[in-house]
Amino acid sequence: MASLSFEITARAPDSPARRGVLRTPHGILETPCFFPVGTYGVVRGISSTELESIGAQSVLCNTYHLYLRPGPEVLARAGGIHSFMSWRKPVLTDSGGFQIHSLDRFARCDDTGVRFASPIDGSKHLLTPERCIEIQEAIGADLIVALDHFEPVRDAGAEDRARTRELLERTLRWAARCLGARTRADQWLFGIVQGGGLADLRTESAQRTAELGFDAHAIGGLGLGESPERRAELVGVSLEPLPVDRPRYLMGIGKPADLVSAVCQGVDIFDCVLPTRNGRHGNAYTSRGALHVRNARFREDSGPLDPACSCPCCTGYSRAYLHHLFKIGEALGAKLLALHNLAYYMKLMQELRDAITQGNLESWRRDWEQAQRESEGSSPHSAAHSAA
Amino acid sequence: MASLSFEITARAPDSPARRGVLRTPHGILETPCFFPVGTYGVVRGISSTELESIGAQSVLCNTYHLYLRPGPEVLARAGGIHSFMSWRKPVLTDSGGFQIHSLDRFARCDDTGVRFASPIDGSKHLLTPERCIEIQEAIGADLIVALDHFEPVRDAGAEDRARTRELLERTLRWAARCLGARTRADQWLFGIVQGGGLADLRTESAQRTAELGFDAHAIGGLGLGESPERRAELVGVSLEPLPVDRPRYLMGIGKPADLVSAVCQGVDIFDCVLPTRNGRHGNAYTSRGALHVRNARFREDSGPLDPACSCPCCTGYSRAYLHHLFKIGEALGAKLLALHNLAYYMKLMQELRDAITQGNLESWRRDWEQAQRESEGSSPHSAAHSAA
Repeated sequence: MASLSFEITARAPDSPARRGVLRTPHGILETPCFFPVGTYGVVRGISSTELESIGAQSVLCNTYHLYLRPGPEVLARAGGIHSFMSWRKPVLTDSGGFQIHSLDRFARCDDTGVRFASPIDGSKHLLTPERCIEIQEAIGADLIVALDHFEPVRDAGAEDRARTRELLERTLRWAARCLGARTRADQWLFGIVQGGGLADLRTESAQRTAELGFDAHAIGGLGLGESPERRAELVGVSLEPLPVDRPRYLMGIGKPADLVSAVCQGVDIFDCVLPTRNGRHGNAYTSRGALHVRNARFREDSGPLDPACSCPCCTGYSRAYLHHLFKIGEALGAKLLALHNLAYYMKLMQELRDAITQGNLESWRRDWEQAQRESEGSSPHSAAHSAA
Repeated sequence: MASLSFEITARAPDSPARRGVLRTPHGILETPCFFPVGTYGVVRGISSTELESIGAQSVLCNTYHLYLRPGPEVLARAGGIHSFMSWRKPVLTDSGGFQIHSLDRFARCDDTGVRFASPIDGSKHLLTPERCIEIQEAIGADLIVALDHFEPVRDAGAEDRARTRELLERTLRWAARCLGARTRADQWLFGIVQGGGLADLRTESAQRTAELGFDAHAIGGLGLGESPERRAELVGVSLEPLPVDRPRYLMGIGKPADLVSAVCQGVDIFDCVLPTRNGRHGNAYTSRGALHVRNARFREDSGPLDPACSCPCCTGYSRAYLHHLFKIGEALGAKLLALHNLAYYMKLMQELRDAITQGNLESWRRDWEQAQRESEGSSPHSAAHSAA
């Protein structure tokens, strides 16, 4: 796949963390990196120009949603997702499997694929591994993902080993079918490690997925309720068997502390709805801790949302104005806070990359975690976290 | 009022149309000009930066809404509306009287003022002419408006002369009280011509309002259902007695053709929710006629919304993408179309100003009206107009 490459440019001296450059047909991704979520080919309320202005390198779109609207045929005829949404930089699409299961409780899954009904018109659909690749090729993202099947990790001790094994085996069969179905040389395909909450099955899944020869690897099935400690353990066993020279993507994660933790374990790519969803609800991440702009104490606060931030929200408007915009239910407020939160995530990833290059990731992490504890102690609010 | 001035810089040879420069403490307004409506101190969904990018010179805010939220005290302590909303250019506030009557059917009016209940918390309020000025001085716009009382123009022949006379006299008493109540020298106060649908009362109202010595004059009570022909007649009699060297503002008007018509009668200032409201609903004004982007014929249309427009919407996105954004109910679509429609209005006003300077307003108007008829004939849609 000559049009894509991944090069590790720096390694932390005392952890598996690494910095890299992922080259795609739509430009370079500096890793570790975070993908803003643009479900329907738009990061809600935010234009491509605004996304670029805060340093976003890439966008994740949801295959399930784009399949329903506007449909892969429309996207293919528009010249692909980049052209359609006027976004020149890298795009990743997920497989759509997770969205079907989480949004359609009548969806049915067997080895053939996933059967579901469109929430738009009730029409019946079947997503097979082959169709999943066909749709993602029509959408035309730079990075695409194999179809998998999993259930949320249960409490330790309550795992259903037989069920987890069954889904793991199905995911591996589908992985091979996805690899066989692809026809485009200008996309990288991620295989997905599953295995639920069982460390030995995670290890086996990672080993057998790696053996299939994917361009890159994703860790799936996490971020749905397990504790940070348990997640770190499961990420660790999932990563260990994967080839170090391929990108590693931890799907759907997470809070800022989760990103810091997983980068230190050697993860390269993240996506999550938290910064944009929290922003739309008035919850902001700031250098001085989380805050909720609807709080009455901001009614006459003429200061910026985050004095340490240079995003359009923080340089353009006061907390009092943002408070007012949320009080009147104005879309501009939701947009500005979502944009700010994404800027916060982009800056965090830049700091992590710089710390890896400078060889001081561990001390940077200690300082960052100390600052987080202090801001949580001094702030009466940690709304952005509790709203997650 | 030394900090404001109005200078007529060009006159049309064959109509009362004129071009001028209105200097304010927040910069220059080139007239004739159109004020985007930012009810609550925000043009819905659109940032100050975006407004500037399409050439907006000014914003109109609603005193009634700002009085309720965030309240005049908050605005005064923030340093006024410009500072609060991060808008450096001129702002006009209306008196709030019209909004109270149109939004609160239990509002009661006598010579003292208007009594109404807050829709936020049910609290009781009294807006007197003096309080109206006090609130507008706290808000701190460059251009403010006297409190008036009127009812919509009725069908010709159905006018209630006694009632119209009663409201006209009340409006004149309130006008004098507003003039007496003002304390700031850095705002211009508009007196309002009323008189309903009765030409002789309009003439009398204009004469007596002019005699009170306002900085500028507004024509009120129109745009609420009368025909364009009747409106033109009532605008004509309202304008005739007004001093030609003062700015003239036709409140709440209107469609593009209404603006062209009134500019030719000598009106300098306009405001209207149509471009933004139509945009939010998917109706666009274009150089080739009005269109509705939700229409299925745009589903795969890769062209710009208006090929003749250089706004961020038309240069950044395709009709197919805008169609998609509206289909999924995405705020970015509403914002982009509202921004485009405002750009269309700004360009229209610039063309009118240029035609006045060049002395060819009448021929420009004939060409423009011909193009409008042709685009309406060729287009299966005139949604932006019918939606008004």
